[in-house]
Amino acid sequence: MKMNSKNVTLLTDFGTEDGYVGAIKGVLLSGMPDVRISDISHRIQPFNIRQAAFALLNYYADFPAGTVHLLIIDPGVGTSRKGIIVRTNRHYFICPDNGVLSYVLEREVFEAFRIKEKLFGESISPTFHGRDIFAPAAIKILSGEAIDTFAEKTADLISFYRHFEKISETELRLQIAHVDHFGNLILNFTREDWEKMGEPENVKIQLEHGFLHGIRKTFGSTGVKELVTTWDSCGFLQIAQNKGNAAQMLQKKVGDQLILKIGK
Amino acid sequence: MKMNSKNVTLLTDFGTEDGYVGAIKGVLLSGMPDVRISDISHRIQPFNIRQAAFALLNYYADFPAGTVHLLIIDPGVGTSRKGIIVRTNRHYFICPDNGVLSYVLEREVFEAFRIKEKLFGESISPTFHGRDIFAPAAIKILSGEAIDTFAEKTADLISFYRHFEKISETELRLQIAHVDHFGNLILNFTREDWEKMGEPENVKIQLEHGFLHGIRKTFGSTGVKELVTTWDSCGFLQIAQNKGNAAQMLQKKVGDQLILKIGK
Amino acid sequence: MKMNSKNVTLLTDFGTEDGYVGAIKGVLLSGMPDVRISDISHRIQPFNIRQAAFALLNYYADFPAGTVHLLIIDPGVGTSRKGIIVRTNRHYFICPDNGVLSYVLEREVFEAFRIKEKLFGESISPTFHGRDIFAPAAIKILSGEAIDTFAEKTADLISFYRHFEKISETELRLQIAHVDHFGNLILNFTREDWEKMGEPENVKIQLEHGFLHGIRKTFGSTGVKELVTTWDSCGFLQIAQNKGNAAQMLQKKVGDQLILKIGK
Repeated sequence: MKMNSKNVTLLTDFGTEDGYVGAIKGVLLSGMPDVRISDISHRIQPFNIRQAAFALLNYYADFPAGTVHLLIIDPGVGTSRKGIIVRTNRHYFICPDNGVLSYVLEREVFEAFRIKEKLFGESISPTFHGRDIFAPAAIKILSGEAIDTFAEKTADLISFYRHFEKISETELRLQIAHVDHFGNLILNFTREDWEKMGEPENVKIQLEHGFLHGIRKTFGSTGVKELVTTWDSCGFLQIAQNKGNAAQMLQKKVGDQLILKIGK
Repeated sequence: MKMNSKNVTLLTDFGTEDGYVGAIKGVLLSGMPDVRISDISHRIQPFNIRQAAFALLNYYADFPAGTVHLLIIDPGVGTSRKGIIVRTNRHYFICPDNGVLSYVLEREVFEAFRIKEKLFGESISPTFHGRDIFAPAAIKILSGEAIDTFAEKTADLISFYRHFEKISETELRLQIAHVDHFGNLILNFTREDWEKMGEPENVKIQLEHGFLHGIRKTFGSTGVKELVTTWDSCGFLQIAQNKGNAAQMLQKKVGDQLILKIGK
Repeated sequence: MKMNSKNVTLLTDFGTEDGYVGAIKGVLLSGMPDVRISDISHRIQPFNIRQAAFALLNYYADFPAGTVHLLIIDPGVGTSRKGIIVRTNRHYFICPDNGVLSYVLEREVFEAFRIKEKLFGESISPTFHGRDIFAPAAIKILSGEAIDTFAEKTADLISFYRHFEKISETELRLQIAHVDHFGNLILNFTREDWEKMGEPENVKIQLEHGFLHGIRKTFGSTGVKELVTTWDSCGFLQIAQNKGNAAQMLQKKVGDQLILKIGK
């Protein structure tokens, strides 16, 4: 498939108090004057690959065909970790092989390539591959260079994707996959999983002092400051507090487990 | 009036640790490849409509004619709150009807429309109208679609605009309308209000331990760490601490009241 | 030299909870519809010129020739501090004369101009020169207006650049010039300084409880949570903690001094 685009998205843990994000943008604009850069976030917590992986799921599919998604959360920079390019039927992803593509790989058909770092010059800073390798690789792709001229096919990408655990026909052990900016607790259970189970109406999540019943349409389906379970905007089950912060209220964090019961 | 523009501004409380801002950008770029997106802020405090309303006042008028201002602070998403489009003689504003336009409505002649949400498809996430309704509505406007094909005239918009209170000929009760990033206290009293009163030279604001006299030209008109009253960059009266943070120094916050006295 | 560009970069301490950044963008887009604005950071700590100066060093050279770098950290706004334009052989810098160009001036051949503020109109807010003077000056430059029509040559720019101190042939007193988002401690000693000294292999930095030996290639050259000395991406010596935060671990901050010893 031919995919023409000038779009690059940027997701990093660089923060915005330094000039690191600026360096990436400068390299992109120097390489392609009419590139279109979309900042997604530079405030991923340092080295928090899981947070970045979930954020990516929220936006990648909305971008035009041919978009290159740059994902630079790179605690292993300069070690033997691979720099990779993943191509799906609509998008490109450039990142260290660290699991940041876990959700994408689960949902898409893809081809993976390992970047040949040595082709990117002798003067490469071993601490800033974002500027010196990943951004130039993005320009090569947008310019129509064949990927196999600067990368080679690879497999066995790192993924931490985790399916929920089925304890019994009526009990699932879910995990909190993500806590968003609003404190919503997003669980590793999707609307699709629920549909495969026959769309059971009577579901409830076990909390410290009782159960949270049903799956509502929206936050406002309950009283202010009350808890509510809904599908999030990507189709994941989430626990929210109406006009509040569920993570703070329930003292829950990423990785915590919750039991979902089906039936009365 | 004909208003051609490719400009969209984005003001949200989405934070930048998630991919929600990215989803909006992806939808805009997919709908109009040469759209020009200006990030204003994604760090409005969650659900803090007053903060967003004041921020908007700082920038909207500086943008080119035809700009669409997207304002997505939406604690009521999925409830019966209206999604609206407001058109002034230079700009468009798309937002939930929640008061975020309070200052704009006070200053501009405008027409208001209620978005017909059902026209935006069946698959709308009831928790993410920003992506599924407001961003597509922005594209329709920038593409020249007539607003009345997807929205209907409305009135009675929510506004929390509050004029200062006149206690007597020589005493006004002002309110802190906004506290900015530098801790400047911005009051609901404008240079225009002051001109209508005949530009009195002898004004003073009552603080805990005395009065703050006069209206100075700039922060540096006083000593370092001293308090000073000036007109802010939008023409509002503000109390600042020279190279300091007045809100912290005075322990004041949005909504607090202060007395302005005129004459000796 | 002819330098054509539509690029402006923005580095400010405005934060992103207000509309101040938006006002600058609106002025730029109104003045030049196809200007290309790159956000670098708006989260420089209020009035922290040293932090901004270091951030600038990280990105300016990566941008295309002709780029205008707007640097608005301006505690002295409205006082007699100069507004300046600095032209190097590739870039323009517009800022208050406050030291933010310290590192650039050290590295580049340049010409400096003082902006004639009065040419920018009568209605200038004395608290927002970013919007009312610096952004319009950027547009003039990008539009090809001759700088000497709105600015006059100047000299004696403020700089706080500080060379390391040579205590003896084998001992240098270094200073922490910057602490980045990851807590890396960046010292005022460059790879170039080291090359001039004959690239000594045996170097060590004195810490509270011992020495940190050698200069490694990358963070991952040591164990997780171990300290390591490397060259940063701009060629400065830095102390990092592998997958950790060296500033927190060592309780060090900008301005603190460290002794570098050469030889065994």
